[in-house]
Amino acid sequence: LAEVEDLSRVIYLLDWDQQVLMPRGGGTVRAEQLATVQKLAHELFIDDEIGRLLDELRPYEESLPFESDDASLIRVTRRDWEKQRPVPTDLSAEMAKAGSEGMAAWAAAREAGDFGAFRPWLDRTLELKHRYIACFEPAEESYDILLDDYEPGLTTTEVRAVFDRLREVIVPLVDAVATDEAARFMAGPFPSQAQRALSLEALKAFGFDEESFRLDLSVHPFCTSLGIDDVRLTTRFEEGLESLFSSMHECGHGLYEHGVAPALERTPLGTGASMSLHESQSRLWENVIGRSLPFWRWFWPMTQAAFPEALGGVTLEEFHRAINRVRRSYIRVASDEVTYGLHIILRFELEQELLSGRLATGDLPEAWNARFEELIGTPVPDDRVGCLQDIHWSGGALGYFPSYQLGNVVSLQIWEKVREALPDVDEQIERGSFGDVHEWLRENLYRHGRKFTTAETLERLVGTGIDPEPYLRYLQAKFGSTVAA
Amino acid sequence: LAEVEDLSRVIYLLDWDQQVLMPRGGGTVRAEQLATVQKLAHELFIDDEIGRLLDELRPYEESLPFESDDASLIRVTRRDWEKQRPVPTDLSAEMAKAGSEGMAAWAAAREAGDFGAFRPWLDRTLELKHRYIACFEPAEESYDILLDDYEPGLTTTEVRAVFDRLREVIVPLVDAVATDEAARFMAGPFPSQAQRALSLEALKAFGFDEESFRLDLSVHPFCTSLGIDDVRLTTRFEEGLESLFSSMHECGHGLYEHGVAPALERTPLGTGASMSLHESQSRLWENVIGRSLPFWRWFWPMTQAAFPEALGGVTLEEFHRAINRVRRSYIRVASDEVTYGLHIILRFELEQELLSGRLATGDLPEAWNARFEELIGTPVPDDRVGCLQDIHWSGGALGYFPSYQLGNVVSLQIWEKVREALPDVDEQIERGSFGDVHEWLRENLYRHGRKFTTAETLERLVGTGIDPEPYLRYLQAKFGSTVAA
Repeated sequence: LAEVEDLSRVIYLLDWDQQVLMPRGGGTVRAEQLATVQKLAHELFIDDEIGRLLDELRPYEESLPFESDDASLIRVTRRDWEKQRPVPTDLSAEMAKAGSEGMAAWAAAREAGDFGAFRPWLDRTLELKHRYIACFEPAEESYDILLDDYEPGLTTTEVRAVFDRLREVIVPLVDAVATDEAARFMAGPFPSQAQRALSLEALKAFGFDEESFRLDLSVHPFCTSLGIDDVRLTTRFEEGLESLFSSMHECGHGLYEHGVAPALERTPLGTGASMSLHESQSRLWENVIGRSLPFWRWFWPMTQAAFPEALGGVTLEEFHRAINRVRRSYIRVASDEVTYGLHIILRFELEQELLSGRLATGDLPEAWNARFEELIGTPVPDDRVGCLQDIHWSGGALGYFPSYQLGNVVSLQIWEKVREALPDVDEQIERGSFGDVHEWLRENLYRHGRKFTTAETLERLVGTGIDPEPYLRYLQAKFGSTVAA
Repeated sequence: LAEVEDLSRVIYLLDWDQQVLMPRGGGTVRAEQLATVQKLAHELFIDDEIGRLLDELRPYEESLPFESDDASLIRVTRRDWEKQRPVPTDLSAEMAKAGSEGMAAWAAAREAGDFGAFRPWLDRTLELKHRYIACFEPAEESYDILLDDYEPGLTTTEVRAVFDRLREVIVPLVDAVATDEAARFMAGPFPSQAQRALSLEALKAFGFDEESFRLDLSVHPFCTSLGIDDVRLTTRFEEGLESLFSSMHECGHGLYEHGVAPALERTPLGTGASMSLHESQSRLWENVIGRSLPFWRWFWPMTQAAFPEALGGVTLEEFHRAINRVRRSYIRVASDEVTYGLHIILRFELEQELLSGRLATGDLPEAWNARFEELIGTPVPDDRVGCLQDIHWSGGALGYFPSYQLGNVVSLQIWEKVREALPDVDEQIERGSFGDVHEWLRENLYRHGRKFTTAETLERLVGTGIDPEPYLRYLQAKFGSTVAA
């Protein structure tokens, strides 16, 4: 298992390098390298011997507390083995190769704003997903099988119920508070070097340290972990202060990975539990903390000093209102906390339609644009800021998007617990002190790695399943009051 | 074989990333990742089935011309298989792990100038080398087995004969021309950013392009190739203009790797033939071209413009003399062309003594310093610029150093042929035109990859074996005349 885990991390490095550094010419052979490592990792893992050992270990597992490292290791490995075992190794390698080639094709197509150039890769992704789904017993909905890769045990029906409830509240909230008025100072200038230095100030206060972290540039920001002490964040410098918030977002992922107990390193438990728990952490550090007034009471003087030309005459309150402005905009990763969920609902629906064949890939831009206008209330000017904006489908990550919004939901379930445990958390944040928050999250979430599913984790932490109400209360409180102010 | 080759390149990436980017904390798990990939690559390659296929293919191989791709593939694969097959996979993995850990330890020890901190790693390297050597039939000298990893078929006796002849000429030449007088303008300032930009000007004229190459920073400059179109060069900014020359050096390696015929990619033939041929190319572009007067007739105006403060009042002739000044200095990679060979002879002798046990690792600094003063004629102030200066032993590369000086020798054998083929090569270089030289080298050397050994390559190119005389003539002509002038 340690060797399989090594190979997984090697795949992460091959992928990180491709997105961050690789000369364009390296793409063809890189896809082969990824496919070869994936093939060997898959072969090693689905071996009969692992199945036999898992059977043999069942009595031992049952003799241990559920939450022990060993019982968890056996339980989670069995779940992984049962999910990977039915998939032919060739298909597994082909998916890795297609993902690598697809990401390269997407980056070029996005740059050119040419959906036609990307469409064959989307077709290929879908064809591979159909073959993948066919490896398993039919589920209630095909999409369940993809979703399960990111959210073990969660069903499409459950997600739909949460999203329906969100939609019910968010759509009228957007209608009530969205504005086109822009604070002029948000146009900058925000020189990249100063943004980078400022981002690192925030990240270091959160827990980023150069012995264990890096921050680089990529077309699409992401976080990957090559080990508990080798965590790679990326960001990009586009308009406004996006880079600062995307850095805090990726840092949330990174703190989770960095906080896994060292005893779990090089085991199947040595990473985050699910994508929604992961996103709960990225969104928590980016938004719940990073766009809060207490945070900005601390961070505002540094920010103003970093961008005297843009922010010299601006007040903290004006700035805080500007970075929390609700706006009907195109880009998910740069969108405000209120409209964000609608961006996800759009993708969740389109993914299901693409998968079922109800939507042909050739019709995607049109469907995207029509649905976008319906949901978010503004027309999309071109595919670059429309259906080509995200990397996920190019790499084969279909079924991933719901995690983002589930992460928002879960982040507030967790944050309510943080507040209970640390009644003076706002005062701590105002002082730029994040140690207690970080420690609480590490103790209660990060260190467990993959030992518990999302449902198990929430049961342990808050005693319920995924519950949208804390998140909706937060949105109402924060953005209702912003409007009032 | 393609999969084995993919894994080799993955190892190169793990290593490159470790040296260039990895946060220090990632070292422990990185060593495990390297060991795992090495183990799998070794297991895949030494499989009985490969041996059986090689046997089965013998009649086919014999039916083909020696120089055909297929015959060469079978021949070289058999040689590799016979060299790797006797080595236990565990030892192979252990060497990979020790190399990764050793490099991290060396970087820290070098920074601290602390040989004591590095010594246990050197002991470990030697112990592993003894176990490695014991896998094979005894050779005339144990060192032959290590040398053969970098120079297939070459023996220690042959190297010694070449080096004895070099020593005979170089020692009195150094006595005649070495000087301590330094051109004051060589102290700079040479700001790093300007050095980088200037280096890229030279490299792009040589054939570096951003679709297929990168240039990064590392503690010890090196070149690695993750594919024909993914070639990574590194450099470092230390004193003077070292970075410019080290960039041209690594670019020579890179052009070789980039010039391998695409048909050989993902085969055991898809890289340079031997380390001496590789070094012949790095030293050719760095020195034979990069320190020549014709090159500087072209490059001087750009250089002067890049460093107006340091070079404003300097003439081309003064500068050319300064960069070719023969000096008794400590650092191999920054040394002039005349003393360079003595740095290598020192290492060649010490490696043999360490390996045989005639020299204990604890006595290395003393032995290094004494031998250095004897050979190069100046005392070594500390281990940082003494026996800790090179990365090679830390990574397990014992037996590699001779290649550097053999490369110098071979570079002139090849360069005489280039001159015959391109009588106006000096005029081309003066115009900054390197296309014909690059094309000649690609056609006659680079494209063949590993099809031919060093001896076979030289036989095809110049009709003899390794012959030091062209190189010695070059040194006499270039440095004799510098003195006279």
